[in-house]
Amino acid sequence: LSWAVDSSTLTRMQELVRYIEHTLFKPDASRADIEKLCAEAIQHGFHGVCVNGSRVGLAVTQLEETDLKVVALVGFPLGAGAADTKRYETEVAVDDGAHEIEFVPDLGRFKDGEHEYFLREIRDIVEAADERPVKVVLELGLLDEEQRRIVCEVIRDSGANFVTAPAGFAGEGGGVGELKLLRELLGPNIALKAAGNIPDAASAKALIDAGATRLGTTAGVAIVS
Amino acid sequence: LSWAVDSSTLTRMQELVRYIEHTLFKPDASRADIEKLCAEAIQHGFHGVCVNGSRVGLAVTQLEETDLKVVALVGFPLGAGAADTKRYETEVAVDDGAHEIEFVPDLGRFKDGEHEYFLREIRDIVEAADERPVKVVLELGLLDEEQRRIVCEVIRDSGANFVTAPAGFAGEGGGVGELKLLRELLGPNIALKAAGNIPDAASAKALIDAGATRLGTTAGVAIVS
Repeated sequence: LSWAVDSSTLTRMQELVRYIEHTLFKPDASRADIEKLCAEAIQHGFHGVCVNGSRVGLAVTQLEETDLKVVALVGFPLGAGAADTKRYETEVAVDDGAHEIEFVPDLGRFKDGEHEYFLREIRDIVEAADERPVKVVLELGLLDEEQRRIVCEVIRDSGANFVTAPAGFAGEGGGVGELKLLRELLGPNIALKAAGNIPDAASAKALIDAGATRLGTTAGVAIVS
Repeated sequence: LSWAVDSSTLTRMQELVRYIEHTLFKPDASRADIEKLCAEAIQHGFHGVCVNGSRVGLAVTQLEETDLKVVALVGFPLGAGAADTKRYETEVAVDDGAHEIEFVPDLGRFKDGEHEYFLREIRDIVEAADERPVKVVLELGLLDEEQRRIVCEVIRDSGANFVTAPAGFAGEGGGVGELKLLRELLGPNIALKAAGNIPDAASAKALIDAGATRLGTTAGVAIVS
């Protein structure tokens, strides 16, 4: 029985590590920091790493002998740059070898009712990503009920593959509630990522049980340790 | 005597308002928020407004009958995007009518010793800004003593007109210490801006006395009220 429990735990942990995008976005991250991030991602068998545009090329080089993925942040963290800049930023990330794009859309313009602008922005990123997975970061807490319903309709039409929801804010069930709501509003065809404060394996498992198939976190090593 | 004091206070306040860049960078700032920001800047006679790329065009339209300036944020707030993206972001801001550029350079690459990369990034922005003032946001707290000296040497060679220092962090004298150090390291030919938490007129005056000729703050109206 003891062995069976251990085996099941091991299996779940093996499954869990493949969901993790090992993330580092601090403004003064050094070359050595990025090399360490990539080495840890390889060591633990994570899905890949998630980094700022300036570090995409370095991360691609570090992971080139592996099947780990480099996720490039675009329009991060505010999402309030010009749409044209975000499209160009995606092209630069692709040129630098990024395998996936994670971008922050313009919620201010969306809340102003500019739904066409919002849809066009996402479609431009999807086109610039050239078949690579695109994740849309969506902070549901900034939207009211009606806006949440509409934004999910727009994203369903956009060609994006993933929606990334914030994880770990206090009083919100650590992101579980957001994931369940997103699954309901987005339907079954858009994958979910939880990103943010995921301090341990229990939090990670709760997010996976709520539908996340990716976990973006700076605490990846702590989760599997 | 009472009148003289009032007059002096009034004169200083008139001087103070012309230093203020009325700032709004929250990710979901609405059209109405930006219109209010611009109306307040006109009403109080501020230097101008400081906004994200997505809102530059709107702010330019709001201020077009005035001599107030629109300052466009580039690479904000992390400064960790690709240099090429930041250059393009500057071009888009200029096309949208921005009068000044405020951008965050890549401190991670600088700290790795890539001084040429850092210099080239700033020069590219200065060139893309096409004679418009360029401010370099510099977080001295992320650098050691030697790095501070070198970064200021590089900026002196870059063609940038301004350095923006964070204001208002506790235990740092509200940014006064940073401004004095910057003046010493940059020499007399680069202007200084203090940006961040400047809650009232007393804080603003302390920063001006320490050498700032611009104040970037979300609290501009509170300062003059």
